Amino acid sequence: MTLLRIDGERLWQGLMQMAEIGPGVAGGNNRLAFSPEDDAARGLFRRWCQAEGLSVHSDRFANQFATRDGSEDLPPLLIGSHLDTQPTGGRFDGVLGVLAGLEVLRCLNAADVRTRRPVTLVNWTNEEGAIIRPMMGSEVFTGALALDQARAMTDHRGRRISDMLDALENGAGPNGPGFPVHAYIELHIEQGPVLEQAGEVIGVVTSGIGFRRWQLRFSGQDAHAGPTPMETRRDAMVAAAHAVLIADRAARALPGARATCGRIATPNGSQVTVASQVELTLDLRHEDLAQLDRLTARVLREIEDQALALGVGFACEKTTDSSPVPFDSGVIAAIEAARIQNGFPGRRIVSGAGHDACNMARVCPAGMIFVPSANGISHNETEYTSPEHCAAGAQVLLDSVLMLAG
Amino acid sequence: MTLLRIDGERLWQGLMQMAEIGPGVAGGNNRLAFSPEDDAARGLFRRWCQAEGLSVHSDRFANQFATRDGSEDLPPLLIGSHLDTQPTGGRFDGVLGVLAGLEVLRCLNAADVRTRRPVTLVNWTNEEGAIIRPMMGSEVFTGALALDQARAMTDHRGRRISDMLDALENGAGPNGPGFPVHAYIELHIEQGPVLEQAGEVIGVVTSGIGFRRWQLRFSGQDAHAGPTPMETRRDAMVAAAHAVLIADRAARALPGARATCGRIATPNGSQVTVASQVELTLDLRHEDLAQLDRLTARVLREIEDQALALGVGFACEKTTDSSPVPFDSGVIAAIEAARIQNGFPGRRIVSGAGHDACNMARVCPAGMIFVPSANGISHNETEYTSPEHCAAGAQVLLDSVLMLAG
Repeated sequence: MTLLRIDGERLWQGLMQMAEIGPGVAGGNNRLAFSPEDDAARGLFRRWCQAEGLSVHSDRFANQFATRDGSEDLPPLLIGSHLDTQPTGGRFDGVLGVLAGLEVLRCLNAADVRTRRPVTLVNWTNEEGAIIRPMMGSEVFTGALALDQARAMTDHRGRRISDMLDALENGAGPNGPGFPVHAYIELHIEQGPVLEQAGEVIGVVTSGIGFRRWQLRFSGQDAHAGPTPMETRRDAMVAAAHAVLIADRAARALPGARATCGRIATPNGSQVTVASQVELTLDLRHEDLAQLDRLTARVLREIEDQALALGVGFACEKTTDSSPVPFDSGVIAAIEAARIQNGFPGRRIVSGAGHDACNMARVCPAGMIFVPSANGISHNETEYTSPEHCAAGAQVLLDSVLMLAG
Repeated sequence: MTLLRIDGERLWQGLMQMAEIGPGVAGGNNRLAFSPEDDAARGLFRRWCQAEGLSVHSDRFANQFATRDGSEDLPPLLIGSHLDTQPTGGRFDGVLGVLAGLEVLRCLNAADVRTRRPVTLVNWTNEEGAIIRPMMGSEVFTGALALDQARAMTDHRGRRISDMLDALENGAGPNGPGFPVHAYIELHIEQGPVLEQAGEVIGVVTSGIGFRRWQLRFSGQDAHAGPTPMETRRDAMVAAAHAVLIADRAARALPGARATCGRIATPNGSQVTVASQVELTLDLRHEDLAQLDRLTARVLREIEDQALALGVGFACEKTTDSSPVPFDSGVIAAIEAARIQNGFPGRRIVSGAGHDACNMARVCPAGMIFVPSANGISHNETEYTSPEHCAAGAQVLLDSVLMLAG
């Protein structure tokens, strides 16, 4: 059993200091990927790592890596998460995993513990996907998305990723993406209510939920709101409203399912014109692949049938498709052992959100540690995880690292 | 009976020439109020009127007036409409009334007919209301809206009306707004299917429909789309979708009613976050005031009840309130007489849209002439009225002017 203890006070102070970069309007953060605030967070991360004597580099997609050498020249154990946030995001989502990783390396330095394998801490680029598809950094790192293809994409305001990458001061380096990794561990807040409601501290994550996202487009006919009789309209807004409720009802009827329409727009819309164009995002999730397939087929078919009945055209473009991802039994066992040796109450749990760990699980043994989110709230400025729960998560991460880095 | 005949070919050429300013993407127009295109249309209108020897001036809200003197110094007979369009608007909505008015004055000039009263042709500022409330020019002219209040308003992109007015080259003059008017006649396309389906050419408009508009705001709680169970969500998008369908169903169930939600937005929305803020426009219309009152009360109450049931906050701000407007029996009789003496098939009709004539009817005798819209389509780039129908409308306008100007 280890005698190393992480410093919860130091970890908490780091979290609060990072939260000063890109403050929101209600106590949280607005630190969108590629923004000046993201850039500033990257700079602070680099300086903190360098002050700890770590070797820091970035790959060509601006993923940041800080390495503590091992006694042997082996593929490293990778730990970390992300520092970008949603536009009305919290102070813990992603940030906890990065700063707890830094705390782990600080503990190893302070105790002068030499691990057999190097331990590398990562800050992934654009995990949140608030402006374009999420988890692009780990997608590029693992080869699931080609670097050139990623750089050529544009966000929802039409800005090229390559231009935004090149504008970062703490941006891309000359090498990579990708290098051999022994295993990957990510500490993260749960972002749901399960642990808190059960009075538990540590979630040992067994798999990542499957999710699919679409951009839906409804095409009706613009017509004057006054003289156009209701029965001759082809109203794209009405078709989109049906779509929102079809998805919502289908997810409520299927245990474990989630459906979210988070963004809607009426390009060239006018308050006195029947809408001809409505754009809507749809996000569907389930932990079971067959159930996700059935949910997907049913929702899209009902939306299309309803649009057709209204004389409205319907098109959908899939923007993300991530199957459920089982995590590695060895990494799960190490995290479970670390939880037990520290006496933290906990449970095995499925991750309802997508994480960089899901991409990593496709190329190396991977696993995740969850800590509670107050009221289950995340992607919200009031997101909160207590100092004690942050410290507990970091302690389980430290002890898992000691087991897996040798 | 008059021997004056309007020149339908000259009128049509003017319509097509005006349509070259601010072309749309599908054969129509995008000539928003206060835009450079609107400004260019104003300049062309002024030059055409000056070439006809008319005295042209603008009031302090940039309403343009071109006057042909009468034999006596009396309040003028006012005719006209507007030259601004919807963002995906047509070539006839408003433009026909202005250019047919010019054609009437050209005919009077060519025949050297001297009317007793002056005849003044008007181009009203910002009739369409695509960027802010509609019919502001005639509201300011009639005193329903104070000039200073109108200038201080901002559009949906936050631009001040005063700044946009001051930026016009063909903008505001030093005098007015408002002057005594003997009567007002507006020729306009029907913007609905009634005349065409009945095989008729002229609609003698007996009243303007009543309409009310609101900006609706739904306030839920932003939360991560993955780990947040369906049953704990407070989803503003779902509440807004219910609102769209509540309004649509209520209008379909009440003969003569109209309900339109033309514009929707999710400020700071993300495809992976349950929406916390949704903004939606609502437009309700009916020709009968008591029915409009009942429709309004029922729709807003149901929307609020549904939002509350979802744990979503609801607020609504009324942006326009226009009661049904009966037109003047004398003006109606003159238009009816002009229709009959020309042998045009037609009917009495209610206007489903708001028009500047509705504002004018509150301060002077007013009336409207409708001509058919192909397929009932308007506020759409494919909007069309045939050269023959345009000429018929202008002829009825000319003969009505001769009766009312003496």
